[in-house]
Amino acid sequence: MIDVDGKPTPVVDCDVHETFPSIDVLEPRLDNRWRRYFTECRFAGLPRDPYVATAHGGTRVDAWPESGGPPGSNYEILAEQLIQENHIDYVVLTGSFFRVSAMPQAEFATALASAYNDWLIETWLDRDARLRGSIQVTLQDPEAAAREIDRVGQHPGLVQVLFPQAAERAYGHPSFDPIYAAATRNDLKVAIHPSGSTGTFPMPTPTGSWPRTYVEYHAAFALPYQAQVASLICEGTFEKFPALRVVLLEAGFAWLPHVAWSLDTHWRSLHLEVPWLTRRPSEYLRHHFVLGTQPIVLPDDPRQFLQLLDMIDGDEVLLFASDYPHWDFDAPHRFLPREVPTETRRRLLGLNALELYGLKSPAPEVASGAVA
Amino acid sequence: MIDVDGKPTPVVDCDVHETFPSIDVLEPRLDNRWRRYFTECRFAGLPRDPYVATAHGGTRVDAWPESGGPPGSNYEILAEQLIQENHIDYVVLTGSFFRVSAMPQAEFATALASAYNDWLIETWLDRDARLRGSIQVTLQDPEAAAREIDRVGQHPGLVQVLFPQAAERAYGHPSFDPIYAAATRNDLKVAIHPSGSTGTFPMPTPTGSWPRTYVEYHAAFALPYQAQVASLICEGTFEKFPALRVVLLEAGFAWLPHVAWSLDTHWRSLHLEVPWLTRRPSEYLRHHFVLGTQPIVLPDDPRQFLQLLDMIDGDEVLLFASDYPHWDFDAPHRFLPREVPTETRRRLLGLNALELYGLKSPAPEVASGAVA
Repeated sequence: MIDVDGKPTPVVDCDVHETFPSIDVLEPRLDNRWRRYFTECRFAGLPRDPYVATAHGGTRVDAWPESGGPPGSNYEILAEQLIQENHIDYVVLTGSFFRVSAMPQAEFATALASAYNDWLIETWLDRDARLRGSIQVTLQDPEAAAREIDRVGQHPGLVQVLFPQAAERAYGHPSFDPIYAAATRNDLKVAIHPSGSTGTFPMPTPTGSWPRTYVEYHAAFALPYQAQVASLICEGTFEKFPALRVVLLEAGFAWLPHVAWSLDTHWRSLHLEVPWLTRRPSEYLRHHFVLGTQPIVLPDDPRQFLQLLDMIDGDEVLLFASDYPHWDFDAPHRFLPREVPTETRRRLLGLNALELYGLKSPAPEVASGAVA
Repeated sequence: MIDVDGKPTPVVDCDVHETFPSIDVLEPRLDNRWRRYFTECRFAGLPRDPYVATAHGGTRVDAWPESGGPPGSNYEILAEQLIQENHIDYVVLTGSFFRVSAMPQAEFATALASAYNDWLIETWLDRDARLRGSIQVTLQDPEAAAREIDRVGQHPGLVQVLFPQAAERAYGHPSFDPIYAAATRNDLKVAIHPSGSTGTFPMPTPTGSWPRTYVEYHAAFALPYQAQVASLICEGTFEKFPALRVVLLEAGFAWLPHVAWSLDTHWRSLHLEVPWLTRRPSEYLRHHFVLGTQPIVLPDDPRQFLQLLDMIDGDEVLLFASDYPHWDFDAPHRFLPREVPTETRRRLLGLNALELYGLKSPAPEVASGAVA
């Protein structure tokens, strides 16, 4: 809880990247066939992003464990540095495993994702009741992804299914329907997170070439999101799965007016083409999507930021996220301009996420063995 | 001229699609080698878009000439239906030839583009002094494109070089520098126009698949533009060519705040990576780009539209465009909500374009043989 203008306010951090000290933690969690493949092929890890990481490998310099392993791999450090220091009530873990959907060997990828989910439950979720987790799935094989969701989806710590920013097809394609069916029958959200740019993911911009700088590439995170939102709306996914809600992480939100207004404009003329839509595109957008705030992107003039919040119903659809332990971490007590009104601030910090994920406030006591 | 709250206001229409009655008009304008190729191979035309066109082949139903040929192919109809009826002072022709950049046979494409430019000058520009034209080039071969710009670029009727929405590489790539050098030394702008989605152009969304509906595809026009803007800024194109100005047509403008604010935010942290930039990304955006208004995209609440205009300096950077003879034509006297202030309306209708293109007001008398 933090104090917002005299009101105690729960804080939910909706994008925190846990990881393993080494991918070898997955090996004992594979069945014999895939364990042998893992070992004999000397499997070294998921596809690696071709961009040069920013400072300190793209992470906070203070988040590297002295005991070894990468930032985000040590529960005690995360609990102390993120949760305690920032007075956070709940953390939604999103992992660092999105690129499992970029592996051409889909059956092995599916086995790895299952092993990861088991490791996540044992190592993190069952240890601290303030943690929530995301199910890693393989979008190369939607039927296998649906089976995995049904296998682990009833665990109380798991709140969503994690999608990379793009896969082999746009997310409204009916081939993904088994995943949406599994997510909704298990009362899970679908979250989309930037996933890097390996050669097996689609190119991150529709220009014919890779952005050559990270500045440009970072601003381009929003591009596949805009297209995924349009795809999910226009294909009628929310008519098929009215309970589905999609969480858009780390890709900004100043592009929402463009998407809402332009889809509505074109739909007005072209609605014959999408007879399955029963509402305007902007209404699906408003009711089925929420967005993480990190990295917060602000204009020089805070008045324009307030106008943007008004255009997108920001006080209903935005969720605080820190992106811990990454380099461009946002802290809950200072990520918003001071001009943002008290109640809006409180909704963004935690109230919206409590509602979305069905979390109780106050947060549970931490179990013994956890860092209180 | 039209009357805007008592003030006579010049009208410049910045996106009008002339075309030929048949591609056979190009054949006599090819040299012997390519004429034989054209004839013996029975060349039937540029790559065709895979999307089903909207009503009436994507054009105004009243724009089909009774004498045959497609809408936009008959000067008299265009002069009467567009210029006279709407009291337009100048028209910037943008052609229907963008897909010449999507032809794998680059040498033939270059010959076709030259033939088109000659036909444009003879058939349109030399006939009516109110018309301005765009040079068609082949981005598959930037050196050839630069030679073509130098060949015709001093014709007083030609005001810009036309780019499709995307080519083999993002537009900040240094391989395009010969084109920017040629454009600026001939005092020409570069205009980008949506160009369709043939298999040889990059996919229009970064999702791994084609949008399956035209509604979705239309809203996606803005995606390559956002990436091209970021590429041109981050690669330092405007440091190399400070006089270069880029006209963005038919892709909206409600996405500008996202691009400006996010590039500035990431540049603040990552500027070491782009040491050649001497200003914030948003300053390049503000000074080197202007945008066509068509198809005008409006929120329900006109107040939000005025806020958007304020965020993007709309009264300086927006240019009226009708997209004649296409189906979603915007008319100059009614494309803006009534809440837009008089002077803003006047700037958008024509004053901005007069300045940009160096056009004189009042417009010249039309020559004999032209439709007055």
